Amino acid sequence: MAMKGVIASAVRTLASSGSSASSTTFTRHLHASAGSKKIVGVFYKANEYAELNPNFLGCEERALGIRDWLESQGHKYIVTDDKEGPDCELEKHIPDLHVLISTPFHPAYVTAERIKKAKNLQLLLTAGIGSDHIDLKAAAAAGLTVAEVTGSNVVSVAEDELMRVLILVRNFVPGYTQIVNGEWKVAGIAHRAYDLEGKTVGTVGAGRIGKLLLQRLKPFNCHLLYHDRFKIDPELEQQIGAKFEEDLDAMLPKCDVIVINTPLTEKTRGLFDKERIAKCKKGVLIVNNARGAIMDTQAVVDASSSGHIAGYSGDVWNPQPAPKDHPWRYMPNHAMTPHISGTTIDGQIRYAAGVKDMLDRYFKGEDFPAQNYIVKDGKIASQYQ
Amino acid sequence: MAMKGVIASAVRTLASSGSSASSTTFTRHLHASAGSKKIVGVFYKANEYAELNPNFLGCEERALGIRDWLESQGHKYIVTDDKEGPDCELEKHIPDLHVLISTPFHPAYVTAERIKKAKNLQLLLTAGIGSDHIDLKAAAAAGLTVAEVTGSNVVSVAEDELMRVLILVRNFVPGYTQIVNGEWKVAGIAHRAYDLEGKTVGTVGAGRIGKLLLQRLKPFNCHLLYHDRFKIDPELEQQIGAKFEEDLDAMLPKCDVIVINTPLTEKTRGLFDKERIAKCKKGVLIVNNARGAIMDTQAVVDASSSGHIAGYSGDVWNPQPAPKDHPWRYMPNHAMTPHISGTTIDGQIRYAAGVKDMLDRYFKGEDFPAQNYIVKDGKIASQYQ
Repeated sequence: MAMKGVIASAVRTLASSGSSASSTTFTRHLHASAGSKKIVGVFYKANEYAELNPNFLGCEERALGIRDWLESQGHKYIVTDDKEGPDCELEKHIPDLHVLISTPFHPAYVTAERIKKAKNLQLLLTAGIGSDHIDLKAAAAAGLTVAEVTGSNVVSVAEDELMRVLILVRNFVPGYTQIVNGEWKVAGIAHRAYDLEGKTVGTVGAGRIGKLLLQRLKPFNCHLLYHDRFKIDPELEQQIGAKFEEDLDAMLPKCDVIVINTPLTEKTRGLFDKERIAKCKKGVLIVNNARGAIMDTQAVVDASSSGHIAGYSGDVWNPQPAPKDHPWRYMPNHAMTPHISGTTIDGQIRYAAGVKDMLDRYFKGEDFPAQNYIVKDGKIASQYQ
Repeated sequence: MAMKGVIASAVRTLASSGSSASSTTFTRHLHASAGSKKIVGVFYKANEYAELNPNFLGCEERALGIRDWLESQGHKYIVTDDKEGPDCELEKHIPDLHVLISTPFHPAYVTAERIKKAKNLQLLLTAGIGSDHIDLKAAAAAGLTVAEVTGSNVVSVAEDELMRVLILVRNFVPGYTQIVNGEWKVAGIAHRAYDLEGKTVGTVGAGRIGKLLLQRLKPFNCHLLYHDRFKIDPELEQQIGAKFEEDLDAMLPKCDVIVINTPLTEKTRGLFDKERIAKCKKGVLIVNNARGAIMDTQAVVDASSSGHIAGYSGDVWNPQPAPKDHPWRYMPNHAMTPHISGTTIDGQIRYAAGVKDMLDRYFKGEDFPAQNYIVKDGKIASQYQ
């Protein structure tokens, strides 16, 4: 921690001096020193899908559409989806990369060990939102900058959450399954299909995504509750008609539907364990597009099997990609998908542009938009503390 | 048609005389004559699901929860799900039933032939909304009263439509399928997953359900269009921000998403045939919870196979139940279910109460709520003309 303070101080001095292009032996600072940089991007592979959509920028094959731009400036751009284990492609480039770009959909896990090996590393960029695949403490201690494209896919995720709320409330999945299996049993669906209207929906976290969800829920005439560290703007709160719940455990038993909208931090890891799930109403529906590790994996399986959780839907898993034997694939009444909510084509266009903008600023020695910083000057952004 | 006029006139005379309980040889009139009535209800069977939810009123086993009430008043209440063919249970009761209750989810098709056989029939009630399973012209000509529980499940259907819009826009189904198949291929979903925000959504029909859908779409920041016989209330139109399109064929090419919200009538049967689908934008997404026969079945299959329709979701089929070989079960990019959107538990509670209320009024010789009438005094309600 002392180390962290020293580096942060040095970084601040550098930054305030404005000598961003000056050569220096201090290799870990906010701005790029002059010259060619080695940039590594880790993205999911699209294979046969890459050619199907010219705006499919987030896949390995298109690599955010910035290759020509980077190479024309003399930078080296390595792109891979091979990110796990000691012999993976990513590992080969760890020792000499300057910038690592990754996404939450196919995250390059940046451990303290990798940071230690990455002697040239200066900048970690998340194409999207959510930097919990990075050991933020280690990154801060090493004086690295971590930044996301804040806001790039909040609408994408909020829309997807509302879809999942409806999918669970309306019991969509068994209906679809009947159709593809050649069946027709309305009762098998209807006995547990409800209207969303009149139900109580609570969001755990009311940051950018949580607020967008609440706004979209407003015309459904639900009882809307939210738990967060902070109350939302009173005008917006009144406009949405959402009620603040200071005590999470007091909110949970009131909710027919719970949506998780909190980052993964030390405080939220395993937040929904056996005891907390038991505090939820019997028959609760849970939507989690935030992070898989916020849930105790087995506790979710057990409560789904007992019926205490009547439906669970989300696109986040621990780890990702989810292994073939991940129990959430097989538990009853789930509506799970791979991690996709934030990687719509619209989201990809926005986060590709956001990454390009930050790289451009990095090369020029300019600051990023303030809200994008997750680790800066040795300090971790408040939402990750 | 002359017959219809005579009967309608007689009915009006009867109704205005208020002699609802008087004995009469005119057997087909608005109000019950005194004495025991034979009421037949046709509902889907719930089997093992019947006991799982005390509010599951819409199934054969619970039969709207009105058996004790009917029998305590001396009426006979026959309930079945067996509704097709010359030897079915329903057919046995056609000759002497007074009232037939059915639902759109498992419709008792009331043909001109059945009406002719049903010498005692006076009243046809739809538990829910949508009476196109009845030959309304034949019913009107025979002086029958047809009524629905208008409004009972409009919220249920509108919510379900918005769910389907999101399911198609976000490409949910392949994601879910990957998970249950042990796969993880983000690209296979993401290359055609979009935000709803910014897209153009048009509803064909802006009656009760269409308006509720538009209201719920409002916070998604889409371009909202609607086609209907009538403009909606200017204040509501402005509040929602939806634009009226007088010419359906002019609206269709503008829409990324089309939602069908029109009743099935002679004018709308086969409305979306090959030519009209060709007028839609390539890659259009279509949601249809209205009625299956509004679409040309094969035209939908062909356009889904060619990719002109990029996704089709709905819960209505022609006929219902959909046979095992119905091609919509097997076409690409569908998100179909059995007919369930209007039969949520909340919807069932409302339409069961609405049917009971109308039966009570019928026994007492009172009028129904005006908006419930589909055929009255030999006239068919305007939305079915």
